[in-house]
Amino acid sequence: MSDNSQISLVQLGQQAKEASFALANLTAAQKSALLSTIKARLSDNIELILQANAKDIAQAKDNGLTDALIDRLLLDESRLNGIIGDIENVISLDDPVGKETDNKLLDNGLRLTRRAVPLGVIGVIYEARPNVTVDIAVLALKTGNAVILRGGKETINSNKALSEVIRAAIVEHGLPADAVQLITSADRALVTELLKLDQYVDMIIPRGGQNLQRLCAEQATIPVILGGIGICHMYVDADADLSRSTDVIVNAKVQRPTVCNALDTVLIHESVASSYLPQLAKELGAQQVKLVGCQQTKALLAGCGIAVTDADDESYSTEWLSLTLGVKVVADMSEAVAHIRKHSSGHSEAILTDNIHVAAEFVNQVDSSAVYVNASTRFTDGAQFGLGAEVAVSTQKLHARGPMALEALTTYKWLAWGNYTPRS
Amino acid sequence: MSDNSQISLVQLGQQAKEASFALANLTAAQKSALLSTIKARLSDNIELILQANAKDIAQAKDNGLTDALIDRLLLDESRLNGIIGDIENVISLDDPVGKETDNKLLDNGLRLTRRAVPLGVIGVIYEARPNVTVDIAVLALKTGNAVILRGGKETINSNKALSEVIRAAIVEHGLPADAVQLITSADRALVTELLKLDQYVDMIIPRGGQNLQRLCAEQATIPVILGGIGICHMYVDADADLSRSTDVIVNAKVQRPTVCNALDTVLIHESVASSYLPQLAKELGAQQVKLVGCQQTKALLAGCGIAVTDADDESYSTEWLSLTLGVKVVADMSEAVAHIRKHSSGHSEAILTDNIHVAAEFVNQVDSSAVYVNASTRFTDGAQFGLGAEVAVSTQKLHARGPMALEALTTYKWLAWGNYTPRS
Repeated sequence: MSDNSQISLVQLGQQAKEASFALANLTAAQKSALLSTIKARLSDNIELILQANAKDIAQAKDNGLTDALIDRLLLDESRLNGIIGDIENVISLDDPVGKETDNKLLDNGLRLTRRAVPLGVIGVIYEARPNVTVDIAVLALKTGNAVILRGGKETINSNKALSEVIRAAIVEHGLPADAVQLITSADRALVTELLKLDQYVDMIIPRGGQNLQRLCAEQATIPVILGGIGICHMYVDADADLSRSTDVIVNAKVQRPTVCNALDTVLIHESVASSYLPQLAKELGAQQVKLVGCQQTKALLAGCGIAVTDADDESYSTEWLSLTLGVKVVADMSEAVAHIRKHSSGHSEAILTDNIHVAAEFVNQVDSSAVYVNASTRFTDGAQFGLGAEVAVSTQKLHARGPMALEALTTYKWLAWGNYTPRS
Repeated sequence: MSDNSQISLVQLGQQAKEASFALANLTAAQKSALLSTIKARLSDNIELILQANAKDIAQAKDNGLTDALIDRLLLDESRLNGIIGDIENVISLDDPVGKETDNKLLDNGLRLTRRAVPLGVIGVIYEARPNVTVDIAVLALKTGNAVILRGGKETINSNKALSEVIRAAIVEHGLPADAVQLITSADRALVTELLKLDQYVDMIIPRGGQNLQRLCAEQATIPVILGGIGICHMYVDADADLSRSTDVIVNAKVQRPTVCNALDTVLIHESVASSYLPQLAKELGAQQVKLVGCQQTKALLAGCGIAVTDADDESYSTEWLSLTLGVKVVADMSEAVAHIRKHSSGHSEAILTDNIHVAAEFVNQVDSSAVYVNASTRFTDGAQFGLGAEVAVSTQKLHARGPMALEALTTYKWLAWGNYTPRS
């Protein structure tokens, strides 16, 4: 069934839900054995997978995709071995499913417990990178969930090959192949249809840009985990140690500018702006960073011959994903916080200061998934946070916030034992 | 500002968000003091509130509402004192806000912690009962959240009076009145507009019937907590102690038939159906319960002169909210589980059995917010579960499931302290 384009999405949903029942009560050891087989079979089939990927790359070239995008699609033996090797890491993680908490004897005589259980069926919509196919399938199976995957059409051949190998490994364990289903049709209407499949799908994770996130928020009747969009700020306080600040700012902006936790705007206290901004701008300029700034920034940098594009509300609400950086001079921490509240996507913000009171106040007032004192915003990441795995980075407040680990793929049910007990 | 019908919903949203910032870092003692003042001011204004309610009741009579509905709208001194008295209970609960968990020193050198914080702004859409206005405002303030309330038009005068008293009490504490806002316009389009106010509102709780829940699922761009719809099942196993089963079934159906945890369908193992069903039906009949059953049920009860209406897929998917009960004879537990998976709303299910293996398997296989062994479904309730407060009963799997307590009105943020630390 490498092609399911003739099967209705409702049927895919039913199959996924049915498969989820078979997964829900597997032991941790059974799931680990399954993941080990998946790992082995992917290793066995490296050649087949790379051939499929070569087709995608050839088509991408035919279609004139940029080199950067083609690089995102590309699998080679080393990258594929990296993806396969990561499965071992997932196997080693603690299985959250089946844990019981809040055990208590109620006044009404019932014994109550709260058991962690899989969510059921997870729908994931993603773009480009074929590693997501393996990552998500493995994390879902680890937590006893079925998945419906909808990858980008640019990697359809790679995704088909990867999902077929995974499905065959699932069958080897006597489990339903439909625990992992890839939507193979390129019909875009299926995305909207998937978002409304609330009878069968329990959660939608969109892994992609602003348009995909917005589409999901607007169209889904299923709970959606929005995330992965970071308009991140760093506030340089009057009491910052400026001699140590530049490294952190440059790191947050330059280390990997295309990811969601990269810095988008630096806010600088006016009392240090005139002395520090020219020096900072010079260091940023040496790293090819282009500045988009307020009038004060422009004026302060005019003397040093550093170009600054005029910033406006729209540019301050832009996730740059490139070597562009917004700059704004602010009167105090309150103005910095007000700017962040207005423009942030709730992902990651930081303050640089040696003043313990200002730091505490910043941390109290800023409401984002991660708030840093004297550290780069680049740390917002499941591995950096020691969570073992990262399903996505949530910028919404319900269910999971910030880097989402395995627990975010579970829910719970309340179990209660009585003795033929009516409610009085 | 007892009338805000000239103010745009966007402005109400902005005001609520602004107010939420003022609430977010109040201490538990400050919030308790605020709730005590609210309690005192509601007591001071009982006459004013009852006068407002009398207007609603008069209009309801003019509009020909049923006595049952009018009784739901009605406040009298005793009911109002009960609502006010409940505030003391909320004051006594533990405040979940500000708790820090998962404190750890990361390998990258950062000190990480996860702090519980308020959600921000909660939108609540509800019908009829004016007690919700007080309950939700108090629970939201207890957890540092602002609320936008949209009550039924039948209680608009009561809700205005209650919310005005609460707002005045908030101002007494130097806090923004807009922490609690009631939408006073009766324009139904505002509900849809509220559901899309994702820039300012963090969570929507619809407290009402199927149509309201569906509207929220389909229209909201804000995370919605669906709930309060219970199509609840009880399975009488072959090994049930039948002499003790009837009390539990009758309790689940009859004690309060209009609520979501009341029983909707009883499933009976075929090996006990012929001996037990006539006896059960007789007891249910004595309580005025009407049966809607399968052909086997009908045949078994024909001899006893008990009327049974034909059941179909639609009736088995109905939340009765009345003294009607679905009945189905099943071949075994697997058929019972399959029926539940098909027809349940994921609220509450129960099994009656003395067989420990069947009980464990039922509990493993049934995926609902609450699963009972030898107990009535009527226990699904925040107070019965010892949670102290009940915001709603969630039938979805994300964020909160089953009876939602104060914690469900919070989220968390990750805080990390470095020493001018770049990511390596």
